[in-house]
Amino acid sequence: MTTSNTPGPADVDPAVREELGRLRDSIDNIDAAVVHMLAERFKATQQVGHLKARHQLPPADQAREARQIARLRTLAENAKLDPAFAEKFLNFIIAEVIRHHERIAEDTVSGPAPTPN
Amino acid sequence: MTTSNTPGPADVDPAVREELGRLRDSIDNIDAAVVHMLAERFKATQQVGHLKARHQLPPADQAREARQIARLRTLAENAKLDPAFAEKFLNFIIAEVIRHHERIAEDTVSGPAPTPN
Repeated sequence: MTTSNTPGPADVDPAVREELGRLRDSIDNIDAAVVHMLAERFKATQQVGHLKARHQLPPADQAREARQIARLRTLAENAKLDPAFAEKFLNFIIAEVIRHHERIAEDTVSGPAPTPN
Repeated sequence: MTTSNTPGPADVDPAVREELGRLRDSIDNIDAAVVHMLAERFKATQQVGHLKARHQLPPADQAREARQIARLRTLAENAKLDPAFAEKFLNFIIAEVIRHHERIAEDTVSGPAPTPN
């Protein structure tokens, strides 16, 4: 994207810059909250991963995922968030969780994987 | 993935199933919280989008994004979340936001786009 014909920060009206700063502070606060929620979420999914590995349950569970997606789409609609985005978001998180679960399953069967170079 | 040689839900020890249910309830609560935080985040970024469009500011702001990524990586480390995942997550959200901002900018220049079929 070219920015040569668009105003830089120095050209922006101070009132606009202040409003932008106010909104960005809110965005930063929300991001901090979400990062901490996700840290807590991965703590729970790591426990699920160990439980599944110990009891030879498969890392992925498509019935559970379908229920999660349907529920999140409804929650998103009520919160006026694009349900398609909520679904994409959950798939993004689940892909990461499944990677973790597969790693846990491998470590449980064969002992911890060697440290990569 | 084949699940033919892995136990189905009916074969799972009731205590394991209960523990799995407890963890999944926490995950579902966290997901509801995150969806509502993201709805609030997009409300703020939509306002940023309108502000930028009215004042001909570019939809993307690489200096701001670099600061956000550095900050989130630090927050993630402190929360014991993989910083690389936090960065991937922020990029995922920002890509969606930029799509919104570009749409707002187009609508501001040319009037609302026709409703897609």
